[in-house]
This record gives sequence, C-alpha cells and structure tokens, in this order.
Amino acid sequence: MTKAAICTIGDEILIGQIVDTNSAAIATALESAGIRVSRMVSLPDNREVIIESLRKLLKENDIVISTGGLGPTKDDITKAALAELSGSTRYVDNLEQKEIVRTILHSRGLDVLESNLAQSLVPETARVILNHLGTAPIMVFKIGESVLYSLPGVPHEALGAIPDVIEDIKASFPLSGILHRTVMTFGKAESALSKLLEPWEDALPADMHLAYLPNTLTGVRLRLSLYGNGSADDEKRLENELCKLKSLLGDLMYSECDDTLENALGRLLNSLGKTVSAAESCTGGEIAHLITSVSGSSAYFLGSVTSYAVSVKEKVLGVPSDVVEQYGVVSAEVAEAMAKGVRRLTGSDFSVSTTGLSGPGGDGVNPVGTVWVGVDGPLGARTCRFNYHNDRKRNIERFASAALNFLRLYILECR
Amino acid sequence: MTKAAICTIGDEILIGQIVDTNSAAIATALESAGIRVSRMVSLPDNREVIIESLRKLLKENDIVISTGGLGPTKDDITKAALAELSGSTRYVDNLEQKEIVRTILHSRGLDVLESNLAQSLVPETARVILNHLGTAPIMVFKIGESVLYSLPGVPHEALGAIPDVIEDIKASFPLSGILHRTVMTFGKAESALSKLLEPWEDALPADMHLAYLPNTLTGVRLRLSLYGNGSADDEKRLENELCKLKSLLGDLMYSECDDTLENALGRLLNSLGKTVSAAESCTGGEIAHLITSVSGSSAYFLGSVTSYAVSVKEKVLGVPSDVVEQYGVVSAEVAEAMAKGVRRLTGSDFSVSTTGLSGPGGDGVNPVGTVWVGVDGPLGARTCRFNYHNDRKRNIERFASAALNFLRLYILECR
Repeated sequence: MTKAAICTIGDEILIGQIVDTNSAAIATALESAGIRVSRMVSLPDNREVIIESLRKLLKENDIVISTGGLGPTKDDITKAALAELSGSTRYVDNLEQKEIVRTILHSRGLDVLESNLAQSLVPETARVILNHLGTAPIMVFKIGESVLYSLPGVPHEALGAIPDVIEDIKASFPLSGILHRTVMTFGKAESALSKLLEPWEDALPADMHLAYLPNTLTGVRLRLSLYGNGSADDEKRLENELCKLKSLLGDLMYSECDDTLENALGRLLNSLGKTVSAAESCTGGEIAHLITSVSGSSAYFLGSVTSYAVSVKEKVLGVPSDVVEQYGVVSAEVAEAMAKGVRRLTGSDFSVSTTGLSGPGGDGVNPVGTVWVGVDGPLGARTCRFNYHNDRKRNIERFASAALNFLRLYILECR
Repeated sequence: MTKAAICTIGDEILIGQIVDTNSAAIATALESAGIRVSRMVSLPDNREVIIESLRKLLKENDIVISTGGLGPTKDDITKAALAELSGSTRYVDNLEQKEIVRTILHSRGLDVLESNLAQSLVPETARVILNHLGTAPIMVFKIGESVLYSLPGVPHEALGAIPDVIEDIKASFPLSGILHRTVMTFGKAESALSKLLEPWEDALPADMHLAYLPNTLTGVRLRLSLYGNGSADDEKRLENELCKLKSLLGDLMYSECDDTLENALGRLLNSLGKTVSAAESCTGGEIAHLITSVSGSSAYFLGSVTSYAVSVKEKVLGVPSDVVEQYGVVSAEVAEAMAKGVRRLTGSDFSVSTTGLSGPGGDGVNPVGTVWVGVDGPLGARTCRFNYHNDRKRNIERFASAALNFLRLYILECR
C-alpha cells in the first residue's frame, strides 16, 4: 500500500495560535484514494529542522505532503529548505503563476510588491501545479524514490489544491483498483446502525468493506469501499451492494455524498418548491444559522424567531400563557404552539421549533439535555422529545441537528 | 528554555476522521508557561511506532505530552507501549480512579464492565494524576532525564487535564520568572493596532515583550510578557506597563482575559441590569447563537427575529415597505428600522440588527461582503457599514462579530 506523511510548517501552529485543519483534510483525501497516512508532523519555521525532518519522512514514505511556510514574509525559509533538500542551486520564474499573483492582488485592490512577485520563483528542481486561489504555487519535488508536494498553508488554498495533488498522485502511483461510495445517515447511533446492517455486512464479498464514520452534527457517514484490481464489473458489483445498503437504511439516509443535514433539507425544500421557518428557544438561533449557512437558502427560508424570554414566546409567537403555566416552558405543548405560531407569523409551508434545557442550569423538573422539538405543516403539528448528556455548547448543536432531522422526516412524509 | 513535544495517538486522526484540536490547546498552555514546543506528531495505534517515536521525542525534549490511545477498547496498545518504554513489568490498580470510573458510569446509567474497570490499572512506573472527567487516568512517567505525560484523547478530558499538568510541570521545571497579562481588543487590525502602540512598545524594558494574536472572530489578543528572573518588583513593573497599554487602547479593549465579544457583552449587560434583542438578516441567526452560547444569557437576552424574507422584515419587524423600496434591503434605513422594530417587539433596552450580502450572490448594487449594522437604545438608533472580502461562512462570522462590537460600544456610551 502506498504510504504518505503529512507535514505542516509554521510557528503559529506550535504556539497553539491556530488549529491545524489542513492535515485532516489532506488525510481524508489520501485515505479515499487508498493511500495510508503513516504519521503527521508539525514543524517550526526553522530551516535545519525542516530539512532534517522532511529528509527523514521522505526516506520512510512514498509521498510527503507539506503545507505552510510559503507566505511572502517567510518563503525564504521553507523554499530555501526545499531547494537545498532537492539539490537546486537556482530559481526559475513561473510566468503563469506570476500572472495569477498580479490578477489576485489587483482584484483585492492591493499594490503588487516585489515580495509578492517573488512568490512565483521556484527552485529549478520543482515541477509547478498552479495555485489559482493564492499567490504561492504548489511545488512538486522528486527526491530519491519519493515525491514531495509543497502546498500553501492558508486553509482554503491548501484545500483547493488537494484535488489537483490527488490527480497528480494517481498519475504516478498504482491506485486504480479502489472504489468508494458514501452515504450519510442520521437518527441511529453507530452501534444500533451496525446491528441493523450486520447480516448484509457479514455477507459482503471479501474485497468490499463498510466503514462507520460518526459525527455528532452530521450523523454517521457510511463508506462502502471495494479494494479490487480494476476488473470491468467492479463498478457494477459495488453499485449492486450500495442499492441493498440504501434499501436497508430507508429514511435514515439523507444524502449520497459527504454532506450535512441542512444541505439535504435545502435540496428537499427546493425540489418541492416549499418554504420553512423556525421558532427557537434553547437552540438560540443555531437552527436558523445552520439553514442560512447554505448558499441560496433565501429561496426557501423565510425567517425565524428566537424566543428566549417567555414574553417573546407569548407576544410574538402567540403561545397561550395558560399553556406555559399548565405544562411548563419545556413541554410538547409549548413546542407545538411555537411551531404553529412561527408558521402563522411567516406564512411558511413548514416550521420547526425547539424548547429545552441546554444547561448548565436546569428547571428542577426536566434533566439538563432535554429538548422538545416541534414541527408544523400540511399534516398538522408533531412533537418529539430527545435527551442528550453534553455540555451547553454540544447540547445546543445536538438539539439543532435533531430538530433538522425531525423536520426532514416530516417533509418526506408530506411528499 | 524548557522544550516540549506534543504527540497525539489514534488511527482516527491519521485517516482524517477527526481534526486534532488537543495539540493546539496544549501548545497554548505550554507557551503561556514559557515552554517552547519543538514539534507536534500524530501517530497510528501501532505499538512499535508509538514506542520508537516517543523514545526519540523524549531524547530530544524535556517534556513530552501525549493524548489518546487510552480508551477501553484500545488501551492495551498505548498503555502496553508506555509500560515497555518505562521499563514496567506489572500494573497496579489506582483505587481513586477506579472509584471515579464507577461514579461516572453510574451517573450515565451504564453498566460497569471489566474493560471499564481495567482503565484504572496503570504501569507501576507511572505516577497518577486523577481524571475527574473521564475513566482513563493521566499517567506521568520519568524516562531518562525527561518526563512523559499521557492524557486521554477525548478533547474535553484532555483540556480538563491541562491545568493539573501545567501545575505538575511548574513543580518540576524552573519556569518561575515568566509573567503574562492578556487583553482582548476588537475594531482595529493587527497592523493598525501595531502603529497605535508603536511608541509605547518601542519604549518597553528589554525583558518585556508584546505579542499580537489576531483572530477574525474575537479580535486581536495582546499578550504582554515579562521574562524575568523572579525579582520582587516584576509584578508591579508589568502592571505598570499594562496600565499604560490599557489607556492607549481605550474602548478597543473589551476584556482582560482570553475572552469573546459575547462574554464581554454579557458581563456589560448584567452589570447594568439591561436587556437586548436582535434582528438578523444576512447573519441568519449567528448573532443570537453567539449571545445564547453564553451560560446565563437568558438574564439579558430576550429574543431575536431572523427576517430572511422581506415579508418577515415588514410584517414581523414593521419595516415600512416604502423604506425597503426607496433604499433597498441592504441599507442604513432598513438596518435602523429592523433594530427599532425588534426593540419595540421584545421590549428590550437595546437591540442590534444586520442587513447585508454574505454571498455568493450579490444584489447588483452593493459588493458581496457589505453589511449595514444597526443598534437602537436610549440614545436613539445608529447605523454603520462594514465591508469584508471572504466566503459566505466567514462573512457571516465577521458580520456577527462587527455587530456585537458595534452594540458593545453603543452600550458603553449609554452608561
């Protein structure tokens, strides 16, 4: 199996100023391409340390992917280290990248400084993959039997470069036999899902494997992989098993790619030409925030009310005060009245509501982590209670995800 | 200077399933204690690799902090590796941790399995720091001249253990001369702030240093450090310079600890006994979400309206339709009417509003990244325009931060 190491460079990582998110994104892409990541390393902006560490990683791995250390103020360190490591004695100017540098700086209304233009200079030993999102090009070095890819450190530039790098790797290393399919599920924990799928999973052909990748916000991602040797019917055999998996999952599945609930909900509402609104208490705006994080959500999201105070629940959403008194704020009845209230207020086709206790303080009746979710729409109002056992931040996130999924299932029923 | 390495253990990191946030948190704590982090490494759940890598890190560093690999299903690998590395041939049971294991599992309503109880077994060479947040204890090994701390991988357990670990380090290593003070600022970029502070910074005593730690959401954190040798008047000298710094910053400073705008806003409102509400368009619930992420925010946050559709702006918030027509949705006039509308609706003392373009689509008039922020309160309505140049997600975050800060400055004026 082809082996890779990931190396991030920058003092800002070692003093804890930023969290390294590049490594996980690169690892995900490598793993999907069937390449094993043997280790990850973060190094300071120190030429000797960079050279010595990269040399060792290259000796132990087929591929090393580094990010960072290429900005206009620091590139003398990393780029010089890469030049020395690859035995380069002079730099050449990549004119295509130089043009990109000019274009990017102009579009931002910035002056083009010498230090910016110097970014298109690369060691003569480097092959260049253009970086269209930033000023520093991706450099590829063949060192001994191994290949080193040097990517910029800015996360959106590093992420943007990954597909090109994976393409480049595929052209040089024999990875052709691996196929993957992903489905996203929500509503069952990993263990319960595994029980449901066990008979089918046990009967999978020896060259296929199902991986469970749980995430509290987006649910359990399932990845079905075929580790074949490029046979003509591999695709068909994989699709065949995917079909069986999907029918076992039913409505637990919400997407056939790496995805989020709010994206799936958006597609569903768009496909139906319907609108939605939200009334939030304990989730405090998180549901609206998730829905509107999707580009184009203004086509189906009309608005929401965060009714933190009881007075707002009553006055703005029209929750009857005797319902609050009789059942308490955290109750099915209040969740239902909130969902109905915001649907009436905005005129949306569907609505969703939450009332619960995210913590740390409780109400003396319900345990912290309790939430009532309500929905309203053409089939009438529905409510459901969920219980979680996390801190405030994570309870809020889990409440919001549970509400989005409850709404999704309700809309599916209305189709 | 004392030197440390950070090592995270777990296949889930190397396949990119989770982003390693422990390393940055540990690095921040070490850096504050005056310890230099020389590198970070992530390793697979592989005994030989763990032993060989830790041995090398211990040789090159005074301190190694590892996290992960201690769960009930995997501890045989990491714990056995640590036993071998430290020359231990038998395990001893830590009864205090065993009691914690029982208590935690009971409180979650879970059965106490053998595999859970085995977590309190540690190599005889280990000194234990109790983990009150989880089942696996923190283990401390003296190996050669260096010290290895093994922490659990679950982020809130690892983070919870950091203060105890730093205390333990301080007892063993001579770090006494270093003092830090932190202030949080918002409203000026790093470069502008640096210009403002330059004369004072240039006149700082040789043993003092100011570090700029910018963050798009929380502003620029400033850390004033004194690298002394324990003189009696060090504290006083540092406080003296801190005073000067604070007077230069004025209202740019919002906190004297590592903090967020929503926390500072909460303290301010609590101290005045006043309430707030929000009317959000382009921020789509993010402002309400930030405000309600603070424990106890129900004391001052009444609620909010996310008015994504124009109809909700008009009908719920009472924005006059001729104002929308004459000035457009993204305008000072609409921001003002939204702020007034939600204040009227909820009866809050203060209110804040946003209307703008988070992207990717524009309105043909204003560039993507434009936001009008409004506030209303006892001094009447105010508005301000901000422009950013990011993608949708980051524009939303920046709009929300700018709005919280505009509101903070307005409330300060009303005191």
